[in-house]
Amino acid sequence: MSSNSFGKLLTVTTFGESHGPAIGCVIDGCPPGLAIAPEDFRADLDRRATGKSRHTSQRREADDIEILSGVYEGVTTGTPIALVIRNTDARSKDYNDIAERFRPGHADYTYWHKYGVRDPRGGGRSSARETTMRVAAGVVAKRWLAERYGVRVRGWLAALGDVTPRAFDWDAVEENPFFWPDAAMVPELEAFMDRLRKSGDSVGARVTVLADNVPPGWGEPIYGKLDGELAAALMSINAVKGVEIGDGFGAVAQRGSTHRDEITPEGFLSNHAGGILGGISTGQDVIASIALKPTSSILIPGRSVNVRGEPVEVVTKGRHDPCVGIRATPIAEAMVALVLMDQALRHRAQCGDVGAMKPLIPAKTAP
Amino acid sequence: MSSNSFGKLLTVTTFGESHGPAIGCVIDGCPPGLAIAPEDFRADLDRRATGKSRHTSQRREADDIEILSGVYEGVTTGTPIALVIRNTDARSKDYNDIAERFRPGHADYTYWHKYGVRDPRGGGRSSARETTMRVAAGVVAKRWLAERYGVRVRGWLAALGDVTPRAFDWDAVEENPFFWPDAAMVPELEAFMDRLRKSGDSVGARVTVLADNVPPGWGEPIYGKLDGELAAALMSINAVKGVEIGDGFGAVAQRGSTHRDEITPEGFLSNHAGGILGGISTGQDVIASIALKPTSSILIPGRSVNVRGEPVEVVTKGRHDPCVGIRATPIAEAMVALVLMDQALRHRAQCGDVGAMKPLIPAKTAP
Amino acid sequence: MSSNSFGKLLTVTTFGESHGPAIGCVIDGCPPGLAIAPEDFRADLDRRATGKSRHTSQRREADDIEILSGVYEGVTTGTPIALVIRNTDARSKDYNDIAERFRPGHADYTYWHKYGVRDPRGGGRSSARETTMRVAAGVVAKRWLAERYGVRVRGWLAALGDVTPRAFDWDAVEENPFFWPDAAMVPELEAFMDRLRKSGDSVGARVTVLADNVPPGWGEPIYGKLDGELAAALMSINAVKGVEIGDGFGAVAQRGSTHRDEITPEGFLSNHAGGILGGISTGQDVIASIALKPTSSILIPGRSVNVRGEPVEVVTKGRHDPCVGIRATPIAEAMVALVLMDQALRHRAQCGDVGAMKPLIPAKTAP
Amino acid sequence: MSSNSFGKLLTVTTFGESHGPAIGCVIDGCPPGLAIAPEDFRADLDRRATGKSRHTSQRREADDIEILSGVYEGVTTGTPIALVIRNTDARSKDYNDIAERFRPGHADYTYWHKYGVRDPRGGGRSSARETTMRVAAGVVAKRWLAERYGVRVRGWLAALGDVTPRAFDWDAVEENPFFWPDAAMVPELEAFMDRLRKSGDSVGARVTVLADNVPPGWGEPIYGKLDGELAAALMSINAVKGVEIGDGFGAVAQRGSTHRDEITPEGFLSNHAGGILGGISTGQDVIASIALKPTSSILIPGRSVNVRGEPVEVVTKGRHDPCVGIRATPIAEAMVALVLMDQALRHRAQCGDVGAMKPLIPAKTAP
Repeated sequence: MSSNSFGKLLTVTTFGESHGPAIGCVIDGCPPGLAIAPEDFRADLDRRATGKSRHTSQRREADDIEILSGVYEGVTTGTPIALVIRNTDARSKDYNDIAERFRPGHADYTYWHKYGVRDPRGGGRSSARETTMRVAAGVVAKRWLAERYGVRVRGWLAALGDVTPRAFDWDAVEENPFFWPDAAMVPELEAFMDRLRKSGDSVGARVTVLADNVPPGWGEPIYGKLDGELAAALMSINAVKGVEIGDGFGAVAQRGSTHRDEITPEGFLSNHAGGILGGISTGQDVIASIALKPTSSILIPGRSVNVRGEPVEVVTKGRHDPCVGIRATPIAEAMVALVLMDQALRHRAQCGDVGAMKPLIPAKTAP
Repeated sequence: MSSNSFGKLLTVTTFGESHGPAIGCVIDGCPPGLAIAPEDFRADLDRRATGKSRHTSQRREADDIEILSGVYEGVTTGTPIALVIRNTDARSKDYNDIAERFRPGHADYTYWHKYGVRDPRGGGRSSARETTMRVAAGVVAKRWLAERYGVRVRGWLAALGDVTPRAFDWDAVEENPFFWPDAAMVPELEAFMDRLRKSGDSVGARVTVLADNVPPGWGEPIYGKLDGELAAALMSINAVKGVEIGDGFGAVAQRGSTHRDEITPEGFLSNHAGGILGGISTGQDVIASIALKPTSSILIPGRSVNVRGEPVEVVTKGRHDPCVGIRATPIAEAMVALVLMDQALRHRAQCGDVGAMKPLIPAKTAP
Repeated sequence: MSSNSFGKLLTVTTFGESHGPAIGCVIDGCPPGLAIAPEDFRADLDRRATGKSRHTSQRREADDIEILSGVYEGVTTGTPIALVIRNTDARSKDYNDIAERFRPGHADYTYWHKYGVRDPRGGGRSSARETTMRVAAGVVAKRWLAERYGVRVRGWLAALGDVTPRAFDWDAVEENPFFWPDAAMVPELEAFMDRLRKSGDSVGARVTVLADNVPPGWGEPIYGKLDGELAAALMSINAVKGVEIGDGFGAVAQRGSTHRDEITPEGFLSNHAGGILGGISTGQDVIASIALKPTSSILIPGRSVNVRGEPVEVVTKGRHDPCVGIRATPIAEAMVALVLMDQALRHRAQCGDVGAMKPLIPAKTAP
Repeated sequence: MSSNSFGKLLTVTTFGESHGPAIGCVIDGCPPGLAIAPEDFRADLDRRATGKSRHTSQRREADDIEILSGVYEGVTTGTPIALVIRNTDARSKDYNDIAERFRPGHADYTYWHKYGVRDPRGGGRSSARETTMRVAAGVVAKRWLAERYGVRVRGWLAALGDVTPRAFDWDAVEENPFFWPDAAMVPELEAFMDRLRKSGDSVGARVTVLADNVPPGWGEPIYGKLDGELAAALMSINAVKGVEIGDGFGAVAQRGSTHRDEITPEGFLSNHAGGILGGISTGQDVIASIALKPTSSILIPGRSVNVRGEPVEVVTKGRHDPCVGIRATPIAEAMVALVLMDQALRHRAQCGDVGAMKPLIPAKTAP
């Protein structure tokens, strides 16, 4: 399978450059009979979109999805679903001055070295613009998971730089532009971002995604483990430098007597594992977190070289996010949803549908 | 591709249960002409083996590799290389009492729920015994990378519980049973482990792997990124709960002006990225770290249920490691080596061999 | 990999229904630096297009390719190449009367049974309209093969019903609408087709494709053999019921002393094998033939059932080809070219580029 | 996926050389709960084995299967099933004289050119010895298909050179060493083979496989079509030069009014399609045929070259079959069974289990 495709039975292939004519994807393997319409993509695309608040890039992406195939009279037919979005607000001239120089911390140097040629406009293929199509594909996966299994996949911003939430409320998450679960802290975050933008710098972030109602049994050992595939999916998101399942790196200093999640007939007593044991879902919430680096596109000049190896100074003047992690929340949700749907299909291929074996212990949901 | 296979062009398929007749693997896609003999596997298998010090499981694994195919007159022929190790010291009776009960923190419950049947002896397929074959396959990858590109893949224990090295010396790593880079601390670690074993508990660990001399250009965006595939490979190792590339979760609180690795004609000025940008190697050291949970097989009794959903108490009396993370070092190296070799082959398929484009800036190696 | 994708390293994913908004494909894995422009697709799309002579379907396909990604300043960049063609002359009303009935010999019944829902307009996804994108992708493969290895992939109609060529001339093939290598017979074929159309019936055909200058060494035993992959690629073309390599079914009655192609220092003395031994190219011409069934869309009424299982009569009044095999020539060429390019990339991944080992015996080209 | 693996959800990876220590396979993706024991492989391995009559190679293969993994207490567990057979009667000295010369019609030259190194003993990896493991894997697939769907997969020899059966009786097929459906002709075949062996020559053959009770709906358009995958699977068998589905090349001269299989509420009126339309099973018998070339290992001297390009004469004195096609019958059955099982699993992943939609028309079985 080629490297622009993702998933084994639900396969998503994306294409397109930041400032090319269009971006798009082909979703293959979706079961027939799922109702889907262009307007169903709106909500999640808006959540990911730039230009929505003063804290994200000011590029305005209309992001009108066109469904080119795979849907007939409003339902999927089992054939590949092609989605396309035309690139409209692509101001390529912003990037002309960096066609010959490599922005530090960006993929410019590595693409150039790998391929010997690159589309420098807006980062070309390496731009986070590509993640728009992940979100779109994720919409299909979320709907299918919800309709068939009642699975919900939801994320939030778990750290903005060194700031972390002091309270948790699902309702708050969707009511502020930070996906922040503590409404009282939003003014604090706004002040933080204003200072950051003024300084011309950027900051990292942490995003956590939780999927509830995942039945036990999803995940394929040994090299198709649920956590292994989540790790691949999440690490492939632009700017991600780390992935954790459950307690993640917190487990390093833990004792086994603490970490192991004991079980009673009423259910698990804790969820340090993040809902996955041996690469297979336990029936508890599946929880994954990612670390996002601070974007390298900042106003503070940096040293680099150009295509001739000469030293240059780089200042990135394009429309960029001072914290790319914020908008990563719906992207991470999409990747988790795509992995779960793929694993659900794989599980039913080998083991038959969920429900053949009734979970011994009840599922439990808690943020 | 099935879920017991790993890699696109260099594909490793493993098989075998902890206490079945044998474990083995098939390595497919290795270029012809690589010299390889049974004794070449000895060193790394010994590094992973149990029973080597009092700080690891006392199961004695002879681990004599037999090469069943793919090697003729001492060199690989381009056909699949099958390796097999007979299981000898498999004391299945140790596990009889847990055939009907699910050890907390183990894959017992999830395998049972997924498949409706499981081999409980020593964890069956979910046992870390499987990683023996990863190490064996990794030997082939390490040799090929070293001979063809001068790439070395080496790991160390970066944290034992909350203890971290105070100094770093490559030479020390291989001279103590902890893969610890600070020789002066070894007595401290031994005391730590003795206390831990006495308490009947276990502890987590952190392992870091570094590959040097990796040429720029390896890695396939978007879903075959070098970091994405490292994440999948490392997260698939038993007990791993987190993966970091370069600064990993440390990037969350960093500023962009710090994190971006500036470039001069003499080379990169730092390596926060861990040698990967846009999913492609930069020519710097590739650095990845993993978090390993404390094993759940401990002497302290824990609550669980049996196959009928009734409450039971579980005490694991088998021969287990109080810190499974220690022996994970060669396993993590193997997975990194396998990913790199696969990416090297993929790079030369699409872009021709390395060297077509001379790196503008020198590679830099530093631990 | 999903079932609408084809190829391992050069992967083509197609999408689109006959009468949906558009058809398209994503070509992933093409090496960077290949010059390609929208007008390069014209010639082969025209060769495949309907409406070109009175002997093929009268549906007029403008088939204007738009390149959505993967090409920058006229050359490929190594990122996925997305191609789209809008469907324009889609007269769906022609098909309204068959939405509820299953045309005998068509995929109507099987799609309906598999998916429980289907797009009946023009055959939906099962229409040969999909092959337009194969031809488009094949153009990229042909160019790359020609530029890099001098490989040419050319086909001809080797039988129209029971009529076979009495002479062979490459120049003739492209100068008549039948891809017929014997110019003198063209009036005979035209009369044959006129009679056929008048009878309201259809006829089968045989197409042969020959690739010359294929270097020895392409093809991956055991399950990625060159002939195995050609068989899969060619059998996946609509209406194909048989595939032969070299002498094909003619080998059944042959003796080994005849069939084996003897070798001298000046080259092979014959090519019964069709240029492939043990699944690997020999350096001789690669030759494959396919059998195409007569289309089931004919004016003669046929018995069938409808979605309620009731008996119905079906007469297909749409614009159809009395011999679908004629237009299959460029499609078959495309599939052969795609397989060869994929194998070339796979060969260079595992074994390095062609040329490392000089063929002992000269290649030989003869139709 | 590597080239020694076959199948998407039921993946079979084979390894081993003709005269190496062992041959084996790993079957991954088999559902749990299937009863399987070493002795279950005996019947089909015997059907394929050499040394069973004077009409096949006299090499005696004991072919004792050892199950190394994936089966616990007599049933599959869902983990990979590894099977191994030790090579015992491997008389390598027979082949010493051809280590440096290329047997015409064999893979010697192509392996040598592809890899630059080869194991010449008995053909090494290119030997039909590898097909032993296909037959073994096929046993698992046949059992699962039979138990779960009542599908039977059976083959026969449809032509021995230019001799074809004059009658058809399933019972006869297994009662003679030729898999011949016309018992009365067996003496004629024996005389034919005796003459052939005396002449030192070999002959081609045709094998047909029929699977009954295949439910409608199996097969994945466009590039995972049931017929496409059968073609790949069958063409990958040693010596196969052609594959037909249903009428195959017979369709070339047919009219559409003949070929299309009309439908009534009582069922299809014919089966020219071989049970597949649009790449999906129709519910009729699935029928595929293959052409096998005459083996090139004959006593009649042939011209060739050696590794230095010098002219040599080759006479093959090893123990070879004068008609390799005879023993291909169980191999072809195995490949058909493996394809069907893989497609059954894929179907239930995307579309749920068979039975969701009741076939409108009854299945029909006829040879």
